[in-house]
Amino acid sequence: MSQATDTYVRQNEARFLEELKEFLRIPSISTAPEHAKDTHRAAEFVVEKLKAAGLENVELIETERHPLVYADWLHAPGKPTVLCYGHFDVQPPDPLELWETPPFEPSERNGNLYARGSADDKGQMYSHIKAVETLRAANGTLPVNLKFLIEGEEEVGGVSVAEYVAKNAAKLKADVALVSDTEMYAPGLPTLNVGLRGLVYMEIEARGPARDLHSGLYGGAAPNAVFGLVELLSKMKDAGGRIQIPGIYDDVEPPSADEKASWERLPFDEKEYLKDEVGSTELTGEAGYSVFERTWARPTLEVHGIGGGFTGVGAKTVIPAKAVAKVSIRLVPKQDPDKVVKSVEKFVKENGPRGVQFEVRVLSAGPGLMVNTDHHAIQVAAKAFSDIYGKPTVFTRSGGSIPIVGDFATHVGIPTILMGFGLPDDGLHSPNEKYNIRNYYDGIRTIAHFFEEYGK
Amino acid sequence: MSQATDTYVRQNEARFLEELKEFLRIPSISTAPEHAKDTHRAAEFVVEKLKAAGLENVELIETERHPLVYADWLHAPGKPTVLCYGHFDVQPPDPLELWETPPFEPSERNGNLYARGSADDKGQMYSHIKAVETLRAANGTLPVNLKFLIEGEEEVGGVSVAEYVAKNAAKLKADVALVSDTEMYAPGLPTLNVGLRGLVYMEIEARGPARDLHSGLYGGAAPNAVFGLVELLSKMKDAGGRIQIPGIYDDVEPPSADEKASWERLPFDEKEYLKDEVGSTELTGEAGYSVFERTWARPTLEVHGIGGGFTGVGAKTVIPAKAVAKVSIRLVPKQDPDKVVKSVEKFVKENGPRGVQFEVRVLSAGPGLMVNTDHHAIQVAAKAFSDIYGKPTVFTRSGGSIPIVGDFATHVGIPTILMGFGLPDDGLHSPNEKYNIRNYYDGIRTIAHFFEEYGK
Repeated sequence: MSQATDTYVRQNEARFLEELKEFLRIPSISTAPEHAKDTHRAAEFVVEKLKAAGLENVELIETERHPLVYADWLHAPGKPTVLCYGHFDVQPPDPLELWETPPFEPSERNGNLYARGSADDKGQMYSHIKAVETLRAANGTLPVNLKFLIEGEEEVGGVSVAEYVAKNAAKLKADVALVSDTEMYAPGLPTLNVGLRGLVYMEIEARGPARDLHSGLYGGAAPNAVFGLVELLSKMKDAGGRIQIPGIYDDVEPPSADEKASWERLPFDEKEYLKDEVGSTELTGEAGYSVFERTWARPTLEVHGIGGGFTGVGAKTVIPAKAVAKVSIRLVPKQDPDKVVKSVEKFVKENGPRGVQFEVRVLSAGPGLMVNTDHHAIQVAAKAFSDIYGKPTVFTRSGGSIPIVGDFATHVGIPTILMGFGLPDDGLHSPNEKYNIRNYYDGIRTIAHFFEEYGK
Repeated sequence: MSQATDTYVRQNEARFLEELKEFLRIPSISTAPEHAKDTHRAAEFVVEKLKAAGLENVELIETERHPLVYADWLHAPGKPTVLCYGHFDVQPPDPLELWETPPFEPSERNGNLYARGSADDKGQMYSHIKAVETLRAANGTLPVNLKFLIEGEEEVGGVSVAEYVAKNAAKLKADVALVSDTEMYAPGLPTLNVGLRGLVYMEIEARGPARDLHSGLYGGAAPNAVFGLVELLSKMKDAGGRIQIPGIYDDVEPPSADEKASWERLPFDEKEYLKDEVGSTELTGEAGYSVFERTWARPTLEVHGIGGGFTGVGAKTVIPAKAVAKVSIRLVPKQDPDKVVKSVEKFVKENGPRGVQFEVRVLSAGPGLMVNTDHHAIQVAAKAFSDIYGKPTVFTRSGGSIPIVGDFATHVGIPTILMGFGLPDDGLHSPNEKYNIRNYYDGIRTIAHFFEEYGK
């Protein structure tokens, strides 16, 4: 990166940290109605800082729930445009008693900054703003055109931003989106996430007898909604974790030999993973596939919850009339969510036990995504990340889903760079969430350097 | 029955009904702590009426929860002794808005008396007391020796009475027990219940990962406690309702050809049963067995409830760490509950999917029972019932369990006559519970007539 840029960051690190602390003191818990004003205050903070960094057309956009913030700077003709996304809302801090220092009083320990939202996502998204400030201060201008779209509902489903993106595709037009809301594979290892799984989330409801029946009097002749649901669900996956719904693997493409080889080079200890992360006696899933393949590159089916009949203390001898399960299928790129939904509906229709009626309710359905690692912006980002951290950038995937990436692809037609500076032990959504302070500063450097390089 | 006895009942019907109404006005809801005093008041009512009927040694026995009442009359040397059992506690009346008249304000309509507890069991047990009064008033003495044991916890598990029977076998010594807490197979059809299923009731808990995991990040590699439980439960029964736990059918004896033939003569319309009682699209259960065989003479396995993971509104993408199901197996006579428990434990150990740990907790385990229809007391009871109603008495079984019958068999070593005067549409445990007034009077007649005949 340019010397001027690097010097500016170095000279302003302390202030950058104080500003982030101020941001983190705002308890912008989007799910809590009593914190709606705080979430609004966080939006106002972002507006103010975007203006101070030299962004223009800064808007606080009210929605039905929490506001969005838009801003841009479009004075680099002939240069590409980057759409920066992030969020200023945070998860609730419960359970409070497990925090070593209060969640909204940022505290420095061991080179980390502890506070709710420090890594997810205030610290990361604020580094975009500080990168802009740095470039403007160091060079008097910006090397690329920039648009910012920052939301306050990421932790509660992101409904408003999805609607906004769908309706404002032209306004958001850009060459690439940049999101810093993921993590590095390991400390010091620059990581770009280039694959996400999609998600079809369903409720499956079973209905047996008209009302709960006495299991003594009717047991043996009456259908049982809970057992009917158990029978149906058990048929959906075999003991090896392979989904039994016909057609589900039709469009699944294996990772390339190169990608598989790159995963094999990632530091990974299956025993530690089992013990420290999963915490069970053994791993499960499809034979013949590595953990990376199983969680990143294979569709999986999970039951997230199930309820029906009597679950209180003691014994009640009912044949339950009704039962419900929450079921999802994670999709890999190329799988069509609508086709998957149809396959599930057909399977349920054909495999439900007699006497039990089923209803499938689809709560959401979004595709998986792959970013082409040959894309120019990805190549530049990987190099910029590598330049700052002094190691080759690794490409990983995530088994999770980030809907905004799909929205940018669908409506704006652009790929997204998932360039995150979090670490695996940051404790997102947990007590004692932290963000590594060195990564905060180096994140600002990496973003600024990426803008510089991408503008060349 | 003797003319004097019959005349006394006829002349006192109106008063008998008013006394029962007084009894029914006491809201002795045993499960509700705020009604503990009312339950006690119901015990005092029973004490008073037993004394008035001429019973001796009347005791109100305090327990850890609700009182028991004991009484006897032992002045018929050389004659058999009958142990009369009943209960004065009732189910909660909820949902209140569905009652046409208030549950604790007895109301006469269409020849029925509507009130909570009218059939279950105040009306039926009170007929025993009125039969004693009748015999003493008409004849100046009683034809048999009598013991009464009446409880106030039947609707909440009957813990105190079970302990009392176990500890007071000598005091309760008798030739036969008499319980009126069941129903006639059809209106006007005298019915003795001569078979009950036993019950092994268990909780099965599944544990997968150490804590709920993110299904995106770990789906495909981590065990899922809910799905593990679903897999295990689904293996316990096949699609035809046959239990798959090895050894479970070893000691199952088919009903005799005579018994089967007698069931085939019972009025039964499978379509009406499906529509009016079960309320589902079709019946389930083992092929080749009639509904009577399936519900009375075959062991069955039911899941009464299941819970685990996220069951709130909307979507949460967790891999649940824990899940629990309530599971019971109904047993037929000759099956050993302990052996069944061991079979289940072995099955769970051998069939649980990998990565998931299971725990089986047994909440109760009691055997099924058959009363020998050749037993003298049963033969006399059948004839007495038949004499009053003018039709041959039918012998039926019940798919349910009445633990006190097992306690009398185990500890006192006596069979129980299940001579009930309820009707299938009495609405036990439901709004608008009723007891047929004609059956109340004829029940008193039948009990008195049985005592007379049994004393001959």
